Amino acid sequence: MNVGVDLGGTKIYTVAIDSRGEIVGEAKAKTPVKGGPMAVVDAICSTVGALARPPELSAVGVGAPGAVDFSTGEVRRAPNLPGWMEPFPLGPVLSEALDGTPVWVDNDVNVGTLAEHRLGAAAGQPDVLGLFVGTGVGGALLLDGRIRRGPTGFAGEIGHMVVSPGGRRCGCGGRGHLEAYAGRAGMERRARQMADRGTDTALVEVARAKRMTSSVFARALAAKDSVASMLVDRAVETLGLAIASAAVILDVPLVVVGGGLADRLGATFVERIGTAALAQMPSGQGEALTLVPGDLKDRGGALGAALLCELEGAAPLAEPHVAVMARSRR
Amino acid sequence: MNVGVDLGGTKIYTVAIDSRGEIVGEAKAKTPVKGGPMAVVDAICSTVGALARPPELSAVGVGAPGAVDFSTGEVRRAPNLPGWMEPFPLGPVLSEALDGTPVWVDNDVNVGTLAEHRLGAAAGQPDVLGLFVGTGVGGALLLDGRIRRGPTGFAGEIGHMVVSPGGRRCGCGGRGHLEAYAGRAGMERRARQMADRGTDTALVEVARAKRMTSSVFARALAAKDSVASMLVDRAVETLGLAIASAAVILDVPLVVVGGGLADRLGATFVERIGTAALAQMPSGQGEALTLVPGDLKDRGGALGAALLCELEGAAPLAEPHVAVMARSRR
Repeated sequence: MNVGVDLGGTKIYTVAIDSRGEIVGEAKAKTPVKGGPMAVVDAICSTVGALARPPELSAVGVGAPGAVDFSTGEVRRAPNLPGWMEPFPLGPVLSEALDGTPVWVDNDVNVGTLAEHRLGAAAGQPDVLGLFVGTGVGGALLLDGRIRRGPTGFAGEIGHMVVSPGGRRCGCGGRGHLEAYAGRAGMERRARQMADRGTDTALVEVARAKRMTSSVFARALAAKDSVASMLVDRAVETLGLAIASAAVILDVPLVVVGGGLADRLGATFVERIGTAALAQMPSGQGEALTLVPGDLKDRGGALGAALLCELEGAAPLAEPHVAVMARSRR
Repeated sequence: MNVGVDLGGTKIYTVAIDSRGEIVGEAKAKTPVKGGPMAVVDAICSTVGALARPPELSAVGVGAPGAVDFSTGEVRRAPNLPGWMEPFPLGPVLSEALDGTPVWVDNDVNVGTLAEHRLGAAAGQPDVLGLFVGTGVGGALLLDGRIRRGPTGFAGEIGHMVVSPGGRRCGCGGRGHLEAYAGRAGMERRARQMADRGTDTALVEVARAKRMTSSVFARALAAKDSVASMLVDRAVETLGLAIASAAVILDVPLVVVGGGLADRLGATFVERIGTAALAQMPSGQGEALTLVPGDLKDRGGALGAALLCELEGAAPLAEPHVAVMARSRR
């Protein structure tokens, strides 16, 4: 049985799937806030163990938030995982902890897009841009039916395409990147800035000192809050711009839009982005582009992680001595 | 013997290559200005025939300016070829005219990039963005060692990425596309506009009623003409922007810059574009990006076309009855 793990900043969601990709079991845990990567490994093991153990457990896939070296299973950078300060060989260490069960690790947006390609809104389409609009803006490329990771593993990072030259500062240090305009965190920063400068907005009133969640944006938008409208308009416009440029250079006819903010704002949001993208494309080419909301919502990451095991056909990563060496380095 | 044809708007340049990719013969002809596609076929045949004939002639590759369906050999759109008003099955018709010799046809930027990958500045690199700055701005993608054409055949069209939202009108009808800022034709339009509005510039004085060639730009730049400097600065900046966004989403570490204008402006131009690109990328990622001038200059297109024959391994395109049907449709 294959098991897929969606390793998120706040929770771990794990599913077991059958040969048709149907979920036959699920388990959840909070992502440990203390203990760093080894505590995360233990938490993943407990969710996996609740579903299957070797020899019934044949393989485990993990989708991790951050920069992953798929070929070695190393998570090189994961700013959203507590205490994950330096590269960690999650694949080998997890495999050892699971008695040598083969483990694959990939970026969470890659596995989410893989799931939409196999089981969701992009089923049967070999060329897909996966776009995940949540706290940040993530992207993944499926070209000719295969995830493109690229030599550095960063392929698909649409969130760092430039949409406003010299514009807002992005979390990565760059300027005018898509994520600064269309990610929930960037929108929240901007809303709080505007409130600090005296602009009234329901966004700050509803969220107060808490995180300005996707629901807060949805409610403020429904109440016709002008700051929320302006921020979402700008997100739509910049998402359209980046998608147009990406679609032109990649020649991908289908974009699947998922992620917390997009799921919450719904099909209208996705339609508006599609209209914005089309307006920027060469005449005759935009018509070939379709945007669809993701089908799989919260389950996509874990499903896609489980699919990694069967689709990628790479040799299992774990070599026990590698795992031991890696652990002893900590 | 394999023969490669660079079909340009003004001339046809044809080479025969040996198994090491060395040029062992070349032939030239003017691109016929009358007679449309069939006259072009005749002209290509005469250059090919001057180098080899069946059975010594084993295959022919053609690089054509415009939208090409590689799988069928059809040139769907070629605005720079005289009288080429509608789609034309160049591959099948040329194959028939060459007594059934297998023919492959691809976009000229694709074959130019292929040549740089096999014999030039990108030798040995599996992931390459080819950028050709000439009358327009063309691009091609080599991913994992293979040309990506995409489902519509437009993959790599970096010239139509948006670099200035809502900005200058592009030849394709869109706004703010790279080609409007960095293509020679777009720069010429802008220079003449400025001159019409009263700004003095050596560009218009040197070019007069003739085309503002790459040499005109190079001379005006050397003479520190302020309009030429401004236009080239803007070209550098927008090329950097588009390359940064393309490199981020594709994860390509190498960009080969060729084309008439880039060849004429030389290594400094390419270096400046590299600096501009780096400034737009996420910290830690720009350092992985290298820009190099193309090695093969004017010979790249024909060489790459000849390489098509051996690299692509597709079945020969020509089926005599297809060619006949296509011809009778005209």
